[in-house]
Amino acid sequence: MLKLAYLGPEGTFAEEALRILAPEAERLPSANVGAALDAARRGEADGAVVPLENSIEGGIATTLDELARSEPLLITAELLLPVEFSLLARPGKEIGDIKRVISHPAALTQCRGYIARELPDAVAVSAPSTAGAAQEVALPGSPYDAAIAARIAGEHYGLVELAGGIGDRSDTVTRFVRLSRPAPPPAPTGSDRTSLVAFLSDDHPGALLEMLTEFSVRGVNLTRIESRPTGDGIGRYFFHFDFEGHIADARVGEAVSGLHRVCEGVRFLGSYPRADGLAPQIRRGTADADFDEASGWLARIRGGQV
Amino acid sequence: MLKLAYLGPEGTFAEEALRILAPEAERLPSANVGAALDAARRGEADGAVVPLENSIEGGIATTLDELARSEPLLITAELLLPVEFSLLARPGKEIGDIKRVISHPAALTQCRGYIARELPDAVAVSAPSTAGAAQEVALPGSPYDAAIAARIAGEHYGLVELAGGIGDRSDTVTRFVRLSRPAPPPAPTGSDRTSLVAFLSDDHPGALLEMLTEFSVRGVNLTRIESRPTGDGIGRYFFHFDFEGHIADARVGEAVSGLHRVCEGVRFLGSYPRADGLAPQIRRGTADADFDEASGWLARIRGGQV
Amino acid sequence: MLKLAYLGPEGTFAEEALRILAPEAERLPSANVGAALDAARRGEADGAVVPLENSIEGGIATTLDELARSEPLLITAELLLPVEFSLLARPGKEIGDIKRVISHPAALTQCRGYIARELPDAVAVSAPSTAGAAQEVALPGSPYDAAIAARIAGEHYGLVELAGGIGDRSDTVTRFVRLSRPAPPPAPTGSDRTSLVAFLSDDHPGALLEMLTEFSVRGVNLTRIESRPTGDGIGRYFFHFDFEGHIADARVGEAVSGLHRVCEGVRFLGSYPRADGLAPQIRRGTADADFDEASGWLARIRGGQV
Amino acid sequence: MLKLAYLGPEGTFAEEALRILAPEAERLPSANVGAALDAARRGEADGAVVPLENSIEGGIATTLDELARSEPLLITAELLLPVEFSLLARPGKEIGDIKRVISHPAALTQCRGYIARELPDAVAVSAPSTAGAAQEVALPGSPYDAAIAARIAGEHYGLVELAGGIGDRSDTVTRFVRLSRPAPPPAPTGSDRTSLVAFLSDDHPGALLEMLTEFSVRGVNLTRIESRPTGDGIGRYFFHFDFEGHIADARVGEAVSGLHRVCEGVRFLGSYPRADGLAPQIRRGTADADFDEASGWLARIRGGQV
Repeated sequence: MLKLAYLGPEGTFAEEALRILAPEAERLPSANVGAALDAARRGEADGAVVPLENSIEGGIATTLDELARSEPLLITAELLLPVEFSLLARPGKEIGDIKRVISHPAALTQCRGYIARELPDAVAVSAPSTAGAAQEVALPGSPYDAAIAARIAGEHYGLVELAGGIGDRSDTVTRFVRLSRPAPPPAPTGSDRTSLVAFLSDDHPGALLEMLTEFSVRGVNLTRIESRPTGDGIGRYFFHFDFEGHIADARVGEAVSGLHRVCEGVRFLGSYPRADGLAPQIRRGTADADFDEASGWLARIRGGQV
Repeated sequence: MLKLAYLGPEGTFAEEALRILAPEAERLPSANVGAALDAARRGEADGAVVPLENSIEGGIATTLDELARSEPLLITAELLLPVEFSLLARPGKEIGDIKRVISHPAALTQCRGYIARELPDAVAVSAPSTAGAAQEVALPGSPYDAAIAARIAGEHYGLVELAGGIGDRSDTVTRFVRLSRPAPPPAPTGSDRTSLVAFLSDDHPGALLEMLTEFSVRGVNLTRIESRPTGDGIGRYFFHFDFEGHIADARVGEAVSGLHRVCEGVRFLGSYPRADGLAPQIRRGTADADFDEASGWLARIRGGQV
Repeated sequence: MLKLAYLGPEGTFAEEALRILAPEAERLPSANVGAALDAARRGEADGAVVPLENSIEGGIATTLDELARSEPLLITAELLLPVEFSLLARPGKEIGDIKRVISHPAALTQCRGYIARELPDAVAVSAPSTAGAAQEVALPGSPYDAAIAARIAGEHYGLVELAGGIGDRSDTVTRFVRLSRPAPPPAPTGSDRTSLVAFLSDDHPGALLEMLTEFSVRGVNLTRIESRPTGDGIGRYFFHFDFEGHIADARVGEAVSGLHRVCEGVRFLGSYPRADGLAPQIRRGTADADFDEASGWLARIRGGQV
Repeated sequence: MLKLAYLGPEGTFAEEALRILAPEAERLPSANVGAALDAARRGEADGAVVPLENSIEGGIATTLDELARSEPLLITAELLLPVEFSLLARPGKEIGDIKRVISHPAALTQCRGYIARELPDAVAVSAPSTAGAAQEVALPGSPYDAAIAARIAGEHYGLVELAGGIGDRSDTVTRFVRLSRPAPPPAPTGSDRTSLVAFLSDDHPGALLEMLTEFSVRGVNLTRIESRPTGDGIGRYFFHFDFEGHIADARVGEAVSGLHRVCEGVRFLGSYPRADGLAPQIRRGTADADFDEASGWLARIRGGQV
């Protein structure tokens, strides 16, 4: 039976994502993103489900850095999960009683308005996950009065929902990805996304422009770019790119090869179906058939047939 | 007397940065980045010193988002502060006693190797700042055995340094900026940096390439680019740019005006001396004198003098 | 009374163009393009009308090189003249009698099909202009049997039209320009063209790409580009550019200034109403109002108002 | 025995070029460029030697247009021939006697200074080639007193050299090419040039920039670009490109395929050794080995080996 690790404990948004992505799978909660990925790497699980970015918070640094630097895993699926926060407390508590509230820092940020308005005197404390915060609040003798987490976490740990939908925005979404040990990517569906990480060979002015041109000249549209520090001092970055299409596509293959040639290193992170089901707009002259035709033509003129 | 807010409590790296940037200033510790900036905005302080990016962790999301969206402040100075972490405990404790360690999540990440090696069984807990973690550990009856923070924080809160230099890398640097209410920027020094935020008018393929071209065509070199989500769903970003030169420079002025014309919005974040003292490489034809000469020439040909 | 020089003798297409561009003007025929331009330069005429390019033959090298290198003149008007060729002979001659036909080399080229088909045995001889060929044929004792020229030339020199519309294509057009001594250009009409010549500062790879980017980044569309040898050996070129818009337009002024900064030299050749009456497509953010607005914004942020 | 057609009659610079390019070949003089090429096409000759461009006059329009539009031929060699003009007359004539001088229009242009200075009253008449002019002058009863042509033409037709080196510039060079019926190109030598013609699919703004980017992104340096009218009205052009490298090179192959994909049509005109023996500067990441390596890498990641 398929077993997938996820950012636990039970009741996290990652668990919700996993249940949607792979309803049949056995679920293995992990203490943090790194642990979930390690479980997949070591074969304790067949894969892992972790958050990659959030529409408010941006890229999840730990996931991005793990994918870029640690032993390779490939993205095989993605999911856009609407994120709704609830204020959860032990039975008997009321909003007026809440003096110390605990949650993941991202959740605290996303509920900043609610906290300022409804819990102006409460102290906000960080936890490693929203579900971990709920678990902590549920402990007898916990110093925390309430957690901000998914409603499902409250159900799981026996907490009462004092308020729901308390995020400052009602349309927050987190993008989760399913990761597997390296294997041939899922077949192209016509609505695919590809992810990779590129390290600059040297940080000359114009290096980023050069990289973007490798994509644009083959008609490959970026959907996300994120810079991350290499760790070697301020001013040294590497880049995460997400873009339309599948590594099996001719235009994607040529763009990615071009990037590989001009960069110090490129790490492929996978090609997988897009969660939004959008098909790419393929610019004139960049469809697979155009590449095939051009390739036949090149062979002919190299042979002197003009 | 000059008064500057900073990310407190006393003993943070931000305090260290403030002491270097403005040794004479009165220091006003604030609970978090947003509070420090608000103190500057409301006039409770003359300015604020906050972290902008870290050589390991990348951009400090709160600072970036505050600068992009809340009431404007301008960067007037920057500092690159080497970051060295110590393991701090109440007097009498030894390393073998440490079961629960607390620190800012970024510090926990940067000391991951040390923790795994030396404190394999310890639980790591998040705090809003490294100095706050030290303060917490110093409280009588604190459930935490040790904090990871700057040595200065240990001195401040009466803790003992059990180990120093415990970061996984010895060359970690955090970039701090001093922010002030809008006013004319400091005069050009020949080694300046300019920062701004650009919002895309629409998220078409090639929009980022277009923005970079506005810089490159005027010979303005980027030193940092960072994408941040607009909050309007996955796939919608705005961009932070740092680049060489001063807004008073002709090439910078024209590039920034070009960006303003093609973007939905551009927010200027200031021009200020570079902490590294590097002078920009000015490409042929892009010095102020070249712009002046071209401008005189244009006026002549418009008048028919050729 | 206005006096304009033109590529003579009487009966040339240039005379036709002059009659349309300036019906009232006194006409001064000149022996060749250089002589017509010199008449304008020296003040013997108020201007000159000469061909600049032809839809079959391409740029008229003499005109292009004269404008680029000799004492400056400015284009103040253009005209697209349909070109129709006739076979002209002295009265009494018939097609079967034609053994030697004379015309301007461009006309011979454009009537190649007709000559091969109808005059397969005739010798074709070059003349400095089509009208000059007609004049020559009209001379008593001329060794030439027929000229290829405009019908008007036949009328002028008393020749008979043996055949009309003998060009290989029926839609051939020549672009004529009116040139004047340097003076402020005619006011913008909303449908203008600007011409210039750019000399590379050094012939590095990518120099042309660099020049085109100066145009494209300001949304200025090229309508013609033509390389010409500098004369300093094979592989050294300069460039003629025609593009949409008027030198008084903000986007044109900035693009042209940018070119001036990165090139060894730029010679402005004039802004003038387009013969085809087309209005430019102005890309988002590049209208005069956008430049004005950006300029005001830049002044404000330079003063610290954000 | 190898037979090559050339732009005749005997004594032209083309004959000189042919003697250098193929000393052993039988020489077939042709009346004009088109006739020489047709001889090669029809198999009457094994190839042809014709001028392609001149360092003063620019591209030879007839050659360019023939190569672009008529039945395909491939360039297999090139030669840079210094061009030196002599004033040639029948024995007995002196400079003072010269009233009518005849030559090819390009030669007349290139000797403009000498003619104005030394033959101010002479009439200059056009001939189809410089050698044809010499031949004409040599005819008994010729109305022409002198020809401007290569010294060799004088020797050939029994004329006397009244003056030598009379060109306005002493460093004029004409580039000749040898053309053959389509066959596999000569093997790469490490110092090769490739030529082609590209027709735009539609004449949108930015089309030329797009084409240049196909070259620059693969590190292929252009050595010549020349626009030619398509014939379909003013403002419609196609482009001749010469560039460094051989069609067998990976970077050239990919660039040319890219051009083929985005253009309405591309006609390959051959890869051949450079006359100047220069080796290309190969930009980082664009050598054949880099393409090979990238191609192997792409195959691996497509198979899931990362």
